Amino acid sequence: MKKYLAEFFGTFWLVFGGCGSALFAAGIPELGIGYLGVALAFGLTVLTMAYAVGHISGGHFNPAVSFGLLAGGRFPAKDLLPYIIAQVAGAMVAGGLLYLIVSGNSTPFVIDNHKAGAFAANGYGELSPHGYTMGAAFLAEFLLTAFFLIVILGATDKFANGQFAGIAIGLALTLIHLISIPITNTSVNPARSTSQAIIAGGGYLSQLWLFWVAPIAGAIVGGLIYKLLLQQPETAATTK
Amino acid sequence: MKKYLAEFFGTFWLVFGGCGSALFAAGIPELGIGYLGVALAFGLTVLTMAYAVGHISGGHFNPAVSFGLLAGGRFPAKDLLPYIIAQVAGAMVAGGLLYLIVSGNSTPFVIDNHKAGAFAANGYGELSPHGYTMGAAFLAEFLLTAFFLIVILGATDKFANGQFAGIAIGLALTLIHLISIPITNTSVNPARSTSQAIIAGGGYLSQLWLFWVAPIAGAIVGGLIYKLLLQQPETAATTK
Amino acid sequence: MKKYLAEFFGTFWLVFGGCGSALFAAGIPELGIGYLGVALAFGLTVLTMAYAVGHISGGHFNPAVSFGLLAGGRFPAKDLLPYIIAQVAGAMVAGGLLYLIVSGNSTPFVIDNHKAGAFAANGYGELSPHGYTMGAAFLAEFLLTAFFLIVILGATDKFANGQFAGIAIGLALTLIHLISIPITNTSVNPARSTSQAIIAGGGYLSQLWLFWVAPIAGAIVGGLIYKLLLQQPETAATTK
Amino acid sequence: MKKYLAEFFGTFWLVFGGCGSALFAAGIPELGIGYLGVALAFGLTVLTMAYAVGHISGGHFNPAVSFGLLAGGRFPAKDLLPYIIAQVAGAMVAGGLLYLIVSGNSTPFVIDNHKAGAFAANGYGELSPHGYTMGAAFLAEFLLTAFFLIVILGATDKFANGQFAGIAIGLALTLIHLISIPITNTSVNPARSTSQAIIAGGGYLSQLWLFWVAPIAGAIVGGLIYKLLLQQPETAATTK
Repeated sequence: MKKYLAEFFGTFWLVFGGCGSALFAAGIPELGIGYLGVALAFGLTVLTMAYAVGHISGGHFNPAVSFGLLAGGRFPAKDLLPYIIAQVAGAMVAGGLLYLIVSGNSTPFVIDNHKAGAFAANGYGELSPHGYTMGAAFLAEFLLTAFFLIVILGATDKFANGQFAGIAIGLALTLIHLISIPITNTSVNPARSTSQAIIAGGGYLSQLWLFWVAPIAGAIVGGLIYKLLLQQPETAATTK
Repeated sequence: MKKYLAEFFGTFWLVFGGCGSALFAAGIPELGIGYLGVALAFGLTVLTMAYAVGHISGGHFNPAVSFGLLAGGRFPAKDLLPYIIAQVAGAMVAGGLLYLIVSGNSTPFVIDNHKAGAFAANGYGELSPHGYTMGAAFLAEFLLTAFFLIVILGATDKFANGQFAGIAIGLALTLIHLISIPITNTSVNPARSTSQAIIAGGGYLSQLWLFWVAPIAGAIVGGLIYKLLLQQPETAATTK
Repeated sequence: MKKYLAEFFGTFWLVFGGCGSALFAAGIPELGIGYLGVALAFGLTVLTMAYAVGHISGGHFNPAVSFGLLAGGRFPAKDLLPYIIAQVAGAMVAGGLLYLIVSGNSTPFVIDNHKAGAFAANGYGELSPHGYTMGAAFLAEFLLTAFFLIVILGATDKFANGQFAGIAIGLALTLIHLISIPITNTSVNPARSTSQAIIAGGGYLSQLWLFWVAPIAGAIVGGLIYKLLLQQPETAATTK
Repeated sequence: MKKYLAEFFGTFWLVFGGCGSALFAAGIPELGIGYLGVALAFGLTVLTMAYAVGHISGGHFNPAVSFGLLAGGRFPAKDLLPYIIAQVAGAMVAGGLLYLIVSGNSTPFVIDNHKAGAFAANGYGELSPHGYTMGAAFLAEFLLTAFFLIVILGATDKFANGQFAGIAIGLALTLIHLISIPITNTSVNPARSTSQAIIAGGGYLSQLWLFWVAPIAGAIVGGLIYKLLLQQPETAATTK
């Protein structure tokens, strides 16, 4: 039970911190943190929670990661559904609280869901922050999640320097955002996309499928690449 | 005695570095470090002092953290008051020296305490950097301090990768600032709020209560969440 | 075989992440990540892959690094050619996929190879981002790669704190970009230069020689400096 | 002998990377790295070299640090002079090469030594980047170097988590720059000040005394504070 709660709180933190920094602080003229600050915030949500609750749940905070770890042979199938439920629940509570805070502003808060990046939601085509097509968006989300999983599986490999995995994985998420916020506002995480799309509504809901399909497909491919092409056989342990 | 001095110097550094970067370097046109730089500075004060004096005092540098660690069962009640006195004293000396330096400028330094962010002080409503109400400010400070404590208690858990706690906790404070500088100028630390409010004066003093109540309440709730919902029982040690 | 695949994927990630962040996110008005974000992205590609696949291939991701490690006595000559082939192949696949994504934009994507920084390619003289001559460009690439190798050889020295090498080496690449993006768009890596020059074409191809010669020469000199001037003799191990 | 070479190369890197990033990349409109990028660059020079050659020389790269470690009882007096000579020599060679590169630009490079920040040199009063008086500059340099030494002595204390010292110390230098670039262009390091003042000339040379006196005085006080007030007695080792 504790591991599901750890996933709940961890995914809450990912959405509250990552999307919160985008909503509150990214676009302020002159002083705002910009895409660089948002990229850092997303990465730090994972870095901090990986060291805080990684020893409890493994620190996925992302349905695509759970799928990819399953494909990579590191996560039992029976935990997949409860993990995803905990992740989506945590993301949605965070999204609700973000809405509450952002509404407590002297400037009335209105979501214009015909505009890219509304409520920090993910989108493509007309809802891509900088005009990327559905194909480009799919390819970017697919590739980035695949490499995210290669980093995750590699950094937690028994032959790797596993204590540093929280740093490598958290900063991999920062890197992914540095690349792709302009393309899709960066998902690589269906839970994070869902919480924001539900509140943003409109076209964001009809585009939500891509942010489940592309990251999960990419994660499975990344998990298989690591397992089949990179992972060393058990027996290597003795020869090391 | 050494541990109280460690808290004094550590909290001095938090205020001198965090508020100092805001006062001296945040708002310079073109080259200034902006909210992103201030967020990094606050986090690095804690990261650096955690590795420098964490082995002496535990590295709280924040009355809310001391309360939260008490609630989480990691800090003895008898040390609470002396720690808080040392923290507030360190913060106030730092605030005074910041005032001295900022006054040594060819441009006369005047604190306009009807303006948000004056002397890097924390505020809500009219004194919120971007117009957030008291309710939104309270909610943000409460939630962020609660999660700060979850990260602190988790990262220093005996089952966790404790050597990395200084990185996780310091960067958690960076993350918290990336989210909430526009809301309250970010407190999550009553000592930091006090030193700046006393010098800024005016409305900042009458708002100071919130930056004691919300962070401490959040810290206690965060401490209890970790202890009751996430922490693994002692016996897990043997089965690991 | 796994080590060549590790170099392939690692160098793919270096080019996809580093050059991708430059192409997609650097120049966006107000919110863009700028040279600072690109510098961070390049460094994080190496930091993340060093922890992910460093235990498989050593984590070079760069022909100059392979040459420098050879000069420093840490890499067998027989692996040099296959490593470089894997690195250049990974870089080129990444370059092709970047081209595919950047072309999937509502704004038609046109490479103007008379302009500095086109397709994130490296250049000097007229193709230097800020007007540096061939001599200045050569000197900068030479010196920076030499010091990159000193950091690599030092951080992985048997007397060093080797677990942190991935952080030190990755952030050294960030530092190198913070210094030299305005000079040459920063190479220090012939594979990264090749993939972008082939797609950018024109003058970038005729300038490509410098981004093989200067980094490799610098890397060999850096490798020799560490080996001959800094490395402690084997016997130091026992007296430590 | 190797330790003096390590200090030479390390201080070269500090000046070449820190001052180089300021000269080449800080002030570029829109894309430039600003003071935040320069702060990061200075910190990363120390972080990277601490892991690369820290095991050879201890990784001072700064005469004030050598003085402070002497005061703190961690460095033998007989090495003080050769360390300082190696540090200043490394800084000056770096300054010369920076001048060579910056002169290899299509825009003629002219040093206006009546202007603050020329050739990344340190200054106060009229040569302070943002108009701080000599008194404010002295106080800032003194305090920041004192706390730099507290971090250095604490993070390398035998009871501390010493493997992380390179991260804590490097990022402490980043933090120091985040605070004080606007005040003095940040020295805390007489070698770094000397190499730039010699090339900038004019008023920078007559102000150079402050950037020897204040950092060294601060470092000695910081070293004594740690040794006398914070350091635990030897016997604590057994009771830990």
